[in-house]
Amino acid sequence: MRTVEEAERIILENKADLGNEIVLFTEATGRVLAENIKADRDMPPFNRVAMDGIAVKYEAIEKGNTVFRKIAVQAAGDAPAEIKALDECIEIMTGAMLPESVDTVIPYEQIDLNEEGAVVLSSIVAKGQNIHTQGRDRKQGDILAVPGQVITPAVLSLITSVGEEEIRVKKLPRVVVVSTGDEVIDVRETPKPHQIRRSNNYTVQSILKDNGIHADILHLPDEADIMERQLAHCLQYYDAIILTGGVSAGKFDLLPEVLERLFVKQIFHKVAQRPGKPFWFGKHENGVLVFAFPGNPVAAFMCTHRYFLPWLRATLGMIEKPAMYAVLDNDVTFKPELVYFMQVKLLMNNKAQLIAEPVTGNGSGDFANLADADAFMELPADKSEFKKGEVYRIIMIHRFRFHR
Amino acid sequence: MRTVEEAERIILENKADLGNEIVLFTEATGRVLAENIKADRDMPPFNRVAMDGIAVKYEAIEKGNTVFRKIAVQAAGDAPAEIKALDECIEIMTGAMLPESVDTVIPYEQIDLNEEGAVVLSSIVAKGQNIHTQGRDRKQGDILAVPGQVITPAVLSLITSVGEEEIRVKKLPRVVVVSTGDEVIDVRETPKPHQIRRSNNYTVQSILKDNGIHADILHLPDEADIMERQLAHCLQYYDAIILTGGVSAGKFDLLPEVLERLFVKQIFHKVAQRPGKPFWFGKHENGVLVFAFPGNPVAAFMCTHRYFLPWLRATLGMIEKPAMYAVLDNDVTFKPELVYFMQVKLLMNNKAQLIAEPVTGNGSGDFANLADADAFMELPADKSEFKKGEVYRIIMIHRFRFHR
Repeated sequence: MRTVEEAERIILENKADLGNEIVLFTEATGRVLAENIKADRDMPPFNRVAMDGIAVKYEAIEKGNTVFRKIAVQAAGDAPAEIKALDECIEIMTGAMLPESVDTVIPYEQIDLNEEGAVVLSSIVAKGQNIHTQGRDRKQGDILAVPGQVITPAVLSLITSVGEEEIRVKKLPRVVVVSTGDEVIDVRETPKPHQIRRSNNYTVQSILKDNGIHADILHLPDEADIMERQLAHCLQYYDAIILTGGVSAGKFDLLPEVLERLFVKQIFHKVAQRPGKPFWFGKHENGVLVFAFPGNPVAAFMCTHRYFLPWLRATLGMIEKPAMYAVLDNDVTFKPELVYFMQVKLLMNNKAQLIAEPVTGNGSGDFANLADADAFMELPADKSEFKKGEVYRIIMIHRFRFHR
Repeated sequence: MRTVEEAERIILENKADLGNEIVLFTEATGRVLAENIKADRDMPPFNRVAMDGIAVKYEAIEKGNTVFRKIAVQAAGDAPAEIKALDECIEIMTGAMLPESVDTVIPYEQIDLNEEGAVVLSSIVAKGQNIHTQGRDRKQGDILAVPGQVITPAVLSLITSVGEEEIRVKKLPRVVVVSTGDEVIDVRETPKPHQIRRSNNYTVQSILKDNGIHADILHLPDEADIMERQLAHCLQYYDAIILTGGVSAGKFDLLPEVLERLFVKQIFHKVAQRPGKPFWFGKHENGVLVFAFPGNPVAAFMCTHRYFLPWLRATLGMIEKPAMYAVLDNDVTFKPELVYFMQVKLLMNNKAQLIAEPVTGNGSGDFANLADADAFMELPADKSEFKKGEVYRIIMIHRFRFHR
């Protein structure tokens, strides 16, 4: 039996490198960059007017001039106008390129403007005011975003600003989610009293969708021959296979045997955790990974978040981000020498602390509470008493909790 | 000029009700529920075996019996087998329906099992052990999820378990993002020295995509006639129009005038905030809303998060969630009597507190830092000195910061 940390380390050691591909910038949101994005020009690319008003040469102000003749109006996007004398000004708009002959912008609020010219009302005019100078934010050639960064809307904003139409991103793994077990029937069928509907495959598919990955789904009956034939196909077509069910010690848990016959080598079986103890992890000789999670819905859900998503991020070369923690809000007792992944709801107190309230459940099979939970709190195996006020790591299970 | 709170309140008062539609469960992730999801059966639907082992009647144990004849093997999904005598047992698997004739499950670890029968090794056997009793989690008819809940993977898990194929969800608004301004050229073009590429429309589109909304995009030149014609079309086809640029006091900021001619009534113009002061908000007589954000990329970015997304959530009837806060990590001075939306990076300390580090920027036009920021911190207008250690509200701008 492996510890949670060993299991995680082994899984991350088995990260894949699936190479890169080119996508159009319009399809790039959520993908992981595989190239540097560089500034093609200074940012801003010119001395950029930051207020609507008039542009003058400061020398005139210094000499006490307060009356200016307007010789042009220059909007953002216009080629710059130029003054020829110190008593001339240009009416100029935010975003315009500052003409070379002027160096100071006096906003509408500080002038009296008519068709012919302007009178400066304010006595406080500073040389160079209201100008966002060329290259102040970034210089041409500066690196704006690096490989491993997720293309968030803000990164996309940089990509479009520098005119990158085609972006090199990491290839996404091809994933199939395979449910097993004769006890689970299709969503569309009516279950007999001893049957239940299968939801694990759709749920895991939904988690992956929420993380930017399309996964196919497949269901296998508890028959070794059919399992072997179908999984043989999967091993040819996918980079990773997520199985749910069929890996505990039960008589009909055929998967480990079938996988062995298909040359999928077991890397570990069982992890010291609840739920999810029977988690089986293996690798085919061609490199395809098999994550075989227990069929219990909470276990499959937790294992997808705690093991598959970190593998996915490592495989995509995503820059490592810090873990999250929360303050436990109740005393909790958990005796077994296992890491306990406890469902919690998150709140934030007035000190900006995350507070975790346990969601009362009835053991590992209870997935009805999952919809009310925000995270799993990871309670270590070497303790059995967990006190209100102690801080433990959490694993977020969705993105919708805080949003205002 | 409106305060941020007034602007928000007015926008939320103008939430739309776009009605409901039916989607297949396979397309439902991320949508907002418009109906109750009820348990069609008890959860679990039967007394569910929770460990692999043998099922016996506790009466036999009570009488001191430790040797049992195996009369059947019952896997999960099998119709239940029944014993006829107290010295009989059923080898039984996790997930199976507990037969009526037995009431206790003794796991493999506590027995010595062969083809004919089993010897119980443990002296500690409790009546009813290792059984997840029928209806313990939820009763038939219980409400599992309610209108306004986002269909997270966990909610989808419930939906599929109860066999709901078609789900009633809130209709999504049809949105168009319209950039304006002659100074901005297409991403694919090479800018002249005084031009820049437009990124606002793609960036706002990307934010909406990240929030589950497809938006069309459109660019308008600074020509009143073209603007009027194109916007007249938009007012027929969309529920909301997001405009970027063209609403400050500049001579070529034609939009408010054009919108008035199209019977879009101004609800407010200008909000006491930086960036984003020239924000214009209006409503057409047919109910279409116009969010006209300033063209400055950081302002358009911030306004989309602070104003459009709350409108979207209200329009979708999403259950209100708490705001987020963080501890300011530096002293900050901001003199103007405006709310200052400061770009911050978030960290978490060992007390599970969110800590906000200002991302050094060069004023409102600097969007190069946005890619490094995690949130805007909302610093109130009635103060100008903000001290390290004080707690202020934050508006998250992407979902990728914490993920392990």
